[in-house]
Amino acid sequence: MDKKRDAAATIKDVAEHAGVSPMTVSNVLRGKGRVSEETRRRVLEVAEREGYRPNLAARALVERKAPTLALMLGCITNPFYPEFTLATNLAALRHGRYLLVCNTDHEQDGGTRFLEEVGGSLADGVLVANHGDLAVEQLREVEVRGIPVVISIWELPDEPPGIPCVAFDSKAAGRIATAHLIELGHRRIGAVIGSPKTGIHRGRYRGYRDALRGAGIRPSAADERFASDSYESGYDTTIELLKARPDLTALFVSNDLPALGALNAAADFGLDVPRDLSIVSITDIEPAQRSRPPLTTVAIPTEEIASKSVELLLALMSGHSGGKSVVETSTPFLVKRGSTAPVNKRATSAA
Amino acid sequence: MDKKRDAAATIKDVAEHAGVSPMTVSNVLRGKGRVSEETRRRVLEVAEREGYRPNLAARALVERKAPTLALMLGCITNPFYPEFTLATNLAALRHGRYLLVCNTDHEQDGGTRFLEEVGGSLADGVLVANHGDLAVEQLREVEVRGIPVVISIWELPDEPPGIPCVAFDSKAAGRIATAHLIELGHRRIGAVIGSPKTGIHRGRYRGYRDALRGAGIRPSAADERFASDSYESGYDTTIELLKARPDLTALFVSNDLPALGALNAAADFGLDVPRDLSIVSITDIEPAQRSRPPLTTVAIPTEEIASKSVELLLALMSGHSGGKSVVETSTPFLVKRGSTAPVNKRATSAA
Repeated sequence: MDKKRDAAATIKDVAEHAGVSPMTVSNVLRGKGRVSEETRRRVLEVAEREGYRPNLAARALVERKAPTLALMLGCITNPFYPEFTLATNLAALRHGRYLLVCNTDHEQDGGTRFLEEVGGSLADGVLVANHGDLAVEQLREVEVRGIPVVISIWELPDEPPGIPCVAFDSKAAGRIATAHLIELGHRRIGAVIGSPKTGIHRGRYRGYRDALRGAGIRPSAADERFASDSYESGYDTTIELLKARPDLTALFVSNDLPALGALNAAADFGLDVPRDLSIVSITDIEPAQRSRPPLTTVAIPTEEIASKSVELLLALMSGHSGGKSVVETSTPFLVKRGSTAPVNKRATSAA
Repeated sequence: MDKKRDAAATIKDVAEHAGVSPMTVSNVLRGKGRVSEETRRRVLEVAEREGYRPNLAARALVERKAPTLALMLGCITNPFYPEFTLATNLAALRHGRYLLVCNTDHEQDGGTRFLEEVGGSLADGVLVANHGDLAVEQLREVEVRGIPVVISIWELPDEPPGIPCVAFDSKAAGRIATAHLIELGHRRIGAVIGSPKTGIHRGRYRGYRDALRGAGIRPSAADERFASDSYESGYDTTIELLKARPDLTALFVSNDLPALGALNAAADFGLDVPRDLSIVSITDIEPAQRSRPPLTTVAIPTEEIASKSVELLLALMSGHSGGKSVVETSTPFLVKRGSTAPVNKRATSAA
């Protein structure tokens, strides 16, 4: 190994060949210090010729700045996360940083070891996309060690977590989704929520209830189910709810992934979507365009959230956060597709 | 920043509090050198009490061993890659390594800069999951610098790329998929291939042709289309092929993602899958279970490929590769779901 590794020139090699000190080479390569134009050119030529490549791990130590950011998420195979990871990755690259990703669902300790090992050594800052799983206290411990932490996706702009975050208005998203069903004439609107009642989707759930009340419809716990944020849970919970409440003509599902489960559940239950049952949800992940029928959903500003998270983290890392602890993002908006339609009066009266 | 950073104890702090030299602390923490049991215990107690955390970037330099591996892939939002990334990530973690992922589709230079910056500095070894996009010559340049490179997914065990790789038998996968259609009585079997004829899916394509010939069916270029490996391309190409060859009763699609496009294309074309058209493909990504109908496909050993890639890379990094340049994996196998059925004789004669 070591022999082969010698194929790459070091700063010392470049210094020797250029007849200058290693410090001069270092200054030239990093654009620092005072070096004559002639020396600068010679050093760069030699570095090019000898195949010098900077060792980023070494540079990180010298500059006390790691070229990586850490991103913690639930599980990369939940289709929202690859989309968010890609957007975060591209935003980080624009600032010359690479991402170290942790799939906390698959860590026995929920990512604690990752946070401890990576925060402040392999990565100078941490983005947390799954704040639902990591206790805020745990994140605060990392902050105390001087490692900036940003909660990338916070759902309740009015209830700041006490850690810098980028927020979208999940209550508005829930309202917009439910108002769309109401405008289509639906009154019997059930809810499948991808978290406990007071969990991560509570804002979306409140938006659903607010929209019902705003239209003079009394929300009923009997029409609501609290599940988990997965395809399977969306499927099973929808079957159970449809059995219990056969007169529902529409469903609000708090997230696309369980909504895709709900779509297939409705079909397996013998219902035609949207003729017999309208389904609407929140997020707008790519698979929402590809289901049959494609899913009507309320799009959240995924790319904006990702790039603002990276910018906020970098600002905190350079000490210029401007004291903003909650960065807001654009209002979610309805994307109308095939899974919602005007209420089918005949079906309703027949039920 | 620096003031806050002092909250974390350094080796020097621990040494001071324990009344030993920094070298002794370092030896204890890394399990090296000769230290008395009493001293060892005291150092560990102090390190724990003072909140010492190793700086992995520093350790990487000292031990000439980075705690990260690089993984290059096409794009994380292609659903195969999150599944492969997760499996690779878990395999890497078992060996105490984190992954740095590069989405080459989104790099203007196809990932060259990532390879140059990360290979040998932030990561000691590179896994390449998308060898179709990165020229083998480019990878060889990295090898020449002494950085081990492994092609994670090589499709043609009989044609080694000259770089260590983990291979699955893509020709067998194509044969198994097509043989399944033939067993169901289909004779008019078209092909939608997610690469050029001589591109990354050429093994799968050859398997398709071999199976046809084995059953006495003469392959016809008029029944074949070469597309790209995306949902959209699968959709568009299938529409075009169905228009040109309305008598096809079955389709072999070389990969699940374009096959999901083909499923929706057939439905939009007015065909019932599987009654009017059977569709089979290769890989078995999670979304293949969720389409309507769910997709019959030939499963490739994704997790085995991921873990063998990591093991091969680590073996190369420690100089114990055993000279094996192609590591083989289990034979792909058919996963029968709803998108294939016996040929519909009536439909065929009507056409």
